[in-house]
Amino acid sequence: MSKGKPPSQHPSLAEPVAGNGLLDRRAFLTQGIALLGASGLAAVSAAPAHAADPPRLAPWMQSPGAGMSGYGSPSQYESEVIRTLIQSKPGTTGSGASRTPIEALDGMITPNGLHFERHHSGVPDIDPARHRLLIHGLVKRPLIFTVEALLRYPMVSRIHFLECSGNSMMLYSPNPPDLTCGQMHGMVSCGEWTGVPLRMLLEEAGVDPQAQWLLADGADSAAMSRSVPMAKAMDDAFLALYQNGERLRPENGYPVRLFLPGYEGNMNVKWLRRLKVVPAPVMTKDETSRYTDLQADGKSLMFTYAMEVKSVITRPSPGVALQGPGLYEVCGLSWSGHGTIKQVEVSADGGKTWAAAALSAPVLPRALTRFRIPWKWNGAPAVLKSRATDDSGAVQPTRDALVSARGTNAIFHYNAIQAWRVESTGEVKNVYA
Amino acid sequence: MSKGKPPSQHPSLAEPVAGNGLLDRRAFLTQGIALLGASGLAAVSAAPAHAADPPRLAPWMQSPGAGMSGYGSPSQYESEVIRTLIQSKPGTTGSGASRTPIEALDGMITPNGLHFERHHSGVPDIDPARHRLLIHGLVKRPLIFTVEALLRYPMVSRIHFLECSGNSMMLYSPNPPDLTCGQMHGMVSCGEWTGVPLRMLLEEAGVDPQAQWLLADGADSAAMSRSVPMAKAMDDAFLALYQNGERLRPENGYPVRLFLPGYEGNMNVKWLRRLKVVPAPVMTKDETSRYTDLQADGKSLMFTYAMEVKSVITRPSPGVALQGPGLYEVCGLSWSGHGTIKQVEVSADGGKTWAAAALSAPVLPRALTRFRIPWKWNGAPAVLKSRATDDSGAVQPTRDALVSARGTNAIFHYNAIQAWRVESTGEVKNVYA
Repeated sequence: MSKGKPPSQHPSLAEPVAGNGLLDRRAFLTQGIALLGASGLAAVSAAPAHAADPPRLAPWMQSPGAGMSGYGSPSQYESEVIRTLIQSKPGTTGSGASRTPIEALDGMITPNGLHFERHHSGVPDIDPARHRLLIHGLVKRPLIFTVEALLRYPMVSRIHFLECSGNSMMLYSPNPPDLTCGQMHGMVSCGEWTGVPLRMLLEEAGVDPQAQWLLADGADSAAMSRSVPMAKAMDDAFLALYQNGERLRPENGYPVRLFLPGYEGNMNVKWLRRLKVVPAPVMTKDETSRYTDLQADGKSLMFTYAMEVKSVITRPSPGVALQGPGLYEVCGLSWSGHGTIKQVEVSADGGKTWAAAALSAPVLPRALTRFRIPWKWNGAPAVLKSRATDDSGAVQPTRDALVSARGTNAIFHYNAIQAWRVESTGEVKNVYA
Repeated sequence: MSKGKPPSQHPSLAEPVAGNGLLDRRAFLTQGIALLGASGLAAVSAAPAHAADPPRLAPWMQSPGAGMSGYGSPSQYESEVIRTLIQSKPGTTGSGASRTPIEALDGMITPNGLHFERHHSGVPDIDPARHRLLIHGLVKRPLIFTVEALLRYPMVSRIHFLECSGNSMMLYSPNPPDLTCGQMHGMVSCGEWTGVPLRMLLEEAGVDPQAQWLLADGADSAAMSRSVPMAKAMDDAFLALYQNGERLRPENGYPVRLFLPGYEGNMNVKWLRRLKVVPAPVMTKDETSRYTDLQADGKSLMFTYAMEVKSVITRPSPGVALQGPGLYEVCGLSWSGHGTIKQVEVSADGGKTWAAAALSAPVLPRALTRFRIPWKWNGAPAVLKSRATDDSGAVQPTRDALVSARGTNAIFHYNAIQAWRVESTGEVKNVYA
């Protein structure tokens, strides 16, 4: 160590803070690798340099590289980092979902090309010059907006997650599926969304004070439509026009989508063509035949809006194996439709003991929040779990508690603690534990 | 107004807060469009709805849409939103810069496909399995890292801008160029970058306490290299591996680049292959023959690292015209390599009077910060300006002040106040005013 800091300055940070090798979340940043023991990472992962000084010229240094481009793409070596397509209706191409490969990503932002998709009849190819948005119903002045008109309005920008209410649904099944983290939990993504506050447009149309609901219609051929409470519309709802800086992607509702921060993805109606101010919920096909939560007793919960507090460890996870005993960073994603993540605890002993992970700033309401904690793996089998708490006080439940409360008819709003079993080989498996 | 709020609740917000129609930054959000006067936006931009209820089925609703995809792309209708390519060396394809079309974007994040580029010999096509990073020189233990090894290290995620030190260089010229905002100022972009703190790797190698500098080498065929002060390397520098969630794009340094928050883009060496710990600056070709600031007296400033406080109005701007008198949002981007944006003031009367714009949260250190302010344009010619202040107290200078301090030999670190003249036709022109 060259920095003159004696190893004794933070003597406790290299000691486990919970069972089976979890270290203090500050250990990496305040002590660095070298202080965390003889098995510093370089000892296992980097080679000492010998004669090569500098290393031989690689082939890509021996001739000029490719030219600039108008719009870039990922490296050819990342061609396997793609959304996983799962069709829900045989014979169709556009009804189903594609999932974000969250195990291959880091940070809180999802790049637009990998944002999950959920469509009910494919992605319409909408000419923005011909698209219209109608606001009508119980209003003083019905209005039709062109996209150009919407783009003239004042905007707000917000970093928010979107999660399909069917995300993680296969975890309700009696046996733990053998899938990657993204295939199970990847119907969640996060971006910076910019658009027009909905309240502004509704006030301009002049909403009848008795009207408590909105009907929102999509311009896809499924005419996806949902009822939205007026209170949400007048609170933080907006009409998103931009996604991570650029205009919305077609699969995310180009040219305009409804955005309801924290609410289940399906309510954030894409390709928005109509908002009708109505006195009561409309009971559309998309909120009766689906997107209701069938309980054990055969009754369904309807209008379950906010996505619950949740977290998942993305690294290590199935397919992202460990390379032998030693020091690792365990990291993952957490979020809550009810507010801001307050804490994420991680366990390396199957839930017997827990330690607080570090949350990566900025920690924002209704946004993905990256958590990280150092782990000294001794090479023995171990079960990793993460458990999120939000600022409403809600804590992620165990799978047992969730299933006993909801039964196994349920397919939506799964938010139980995820357990990964690390085998002595370093392989990682999905387990119910 | 249906919400029961009397228009008199915020009587002052619809009154100008500075000359020529600038309104309080809170006016839109607390009063909405309808309260801001008879010329509410819908009155000019939206049509009243008549028979159409709902509107006729658009063609894209009459048959199923496109299927899902592994990796998405922008809408075909956005094909003109691309980086502008400007070659700096005739006969080459990869030496020069492409600029982000900031006038077509909103929010703070730049999508990866539109992040500006600046290359000295094109984009190398690097196989990450064969790439190596060498850390050597005045260290106890020289180390060679594979990319796989780097990916095992603990990470940090940070939202930061990158700006080429040559951004806006054409504004030093005696006559105002007739270019778009992005063509002049678009060598700045912002993303969430995730990577390994450099301090951690340097401590593992064991840096000689006398060594005050690093040489950083790129694996492009120009072997771009710069000297970096050790203090920065040990402070907030990191080796970026991810950009907006996914692995770095090739044109941004795939598989690994040096990231020095706030420092001129060129020092954030892409395709990083070598860090040599050295006692003094190396005086590479890239910090002597260029990236030095030639002064009026013929001497050059060297090692001018942090990009200065700066802002620019992106909407309206040249090519983004106004559509007649009425209410508009004026918005733009601000940033500072020295810290966090504290305030952006906007003038609509050429700088005689100024009003504070709203800053869009989160306002982060060394990140792009979106500012917005309502403007009631009366249709007469007007000159719009923005002026940023950061938390170090630095204020963006006028062009006159900048040019008289630096002379016109300079080409780097241009950060003067930008003036846009709005003609009575709504057209917007770049002016020195």
